[in-house]
Amino acid sequence: MRVLEPTDIAPPFARYAHGVEIPAGYRLVVTSGQLPLAADGTIPEGAEAQAALCFENCAAILAQAQMGAADVIRINAFVTGREHMAGYMAARDAWLSDIRRLPASTLVIVSGFTRPEFFVEVEVTAAAP
Amino acid sequence: MRVLEPTDIAPPFARYAHGVEIPAGYRLVVTSGQLPLAADGTIPEGAEAQAALCFENCAAILAQAQMGAADVIRINAFVTGREHMAGYMAARDAWLSDIRRLPASTLVIVSGFTRPEFFVEVEVTAAAP
Amino acid sequence: MRVLEPTDIAPPFARYAHGVEIPAGYRLVVTSGQLPLAADGTIPEGAEAQAALCFENCAAILAQAQMGAADVIRINAFVTGREHMAGYMAARDAWLSDIRRLPASTLVIVSGFTRPEFFVEVEVTAAAP
Repeated sequence: MRVLEPTDIAPPFARYAHGVEIPAGYRLVVTSGQLPLAADGTIPEGAEAQAALCFENCAAILAQAQMGAADVIRINAFVTGREHMAGYMAARDAWLSDIRRLPASTLVIVSGFTRPEFFVEVEVTAAAP
Repeated sequence: MRVLEPTDIAPPFARYAHGVEIPAGYRLVVTSGQLPLAADGTIPEGAEAQAALCFENCAAILAQAQMGAADVIRINAFVTGREHMAGYMAARDAWLSDIRRLPASTLVIVSGFTRPEFFVEVEVTAAAP
Repeated sequence: MRVLEPTDIAPPFARYAHGVEIPAGYRLVVTSGQLPLAADGTIPEGAEAQAALCFENCAAILAQAQMGAADVIRINAFVTGREHMAGYMAARDAWLSDIRRLPASTLVIVSGFTRPEFFVEVEVTAAAP
């Protein structure tokens, strides 16, 4: 896989790639939008802890296909307010801290999710040989 | 195709899969976000009827590629309010009632679509050999 | 690639395809959501100019993989208000004016993006042999 980073447009806002090319013949994984509900039914407080849990869930799903954060090609994330963006970004950067070939990333502020206590939802798409 | 369902994270909120793995060498279909406008120009009343029409439209598009609900890998759905979630979910569950390998699903509350009368928009991605 | 256009459902709202089928064995490109920030740090005024810049950025990213607007399979666009839809659609139609095999398209009104001055975010997915 190859990062697409044209030098004649504004650089990414944060640590993600403008684009990723996936060669022919790769397996794909799509996840559902992951929500910040822990296995014990609790909901972490604050956007950073919520996003960290969403990414942990994504990792658990990817692992079932022998994939991980290094195989993610795009992150689609939704937060319920601008005040949650910094926390979300901190969790994303932590999740990707060891990753060299970064994924594409789209982040949008929306009105809400299945429960009003959720501030963050994260969906990933991944690919591997 | 294979459902990815790690047992160490909270189970899905409803009848969908946490993740789906698509083998190499599959065809893909992407649809536009389908809106609840019938062929005769009418708009059904209520989120459940609107969502049912969106899914019917998705099925008609998939059928052109010899695919159907059983081939869907991810549903991306948007509703304009929490009060429309139950109706949307009922329509989704009905559409998937005969499906054993469930798709991933992401559901988000947004501010609106191309017409204010629309409460639901549904986009699907599918894959088949 | 093949456009999927069933004749028994309402036609697309604008110049896009209801669905696209991608044969097996194609490369894929995913982009990040492109925001209307120019290389010189300026932000164009108005949704049409903002969307035009988003599409220019998408084109620059696709070009790194020897792809272009003709290879796009789905456009996912977000605007912050219904009043920005016409401008967005004008920019999209201009970007696709020479394209015969149209992409699928999903357009949603959301609450905002990484900066309050942005009215539009555009993410594309593309495929080619």
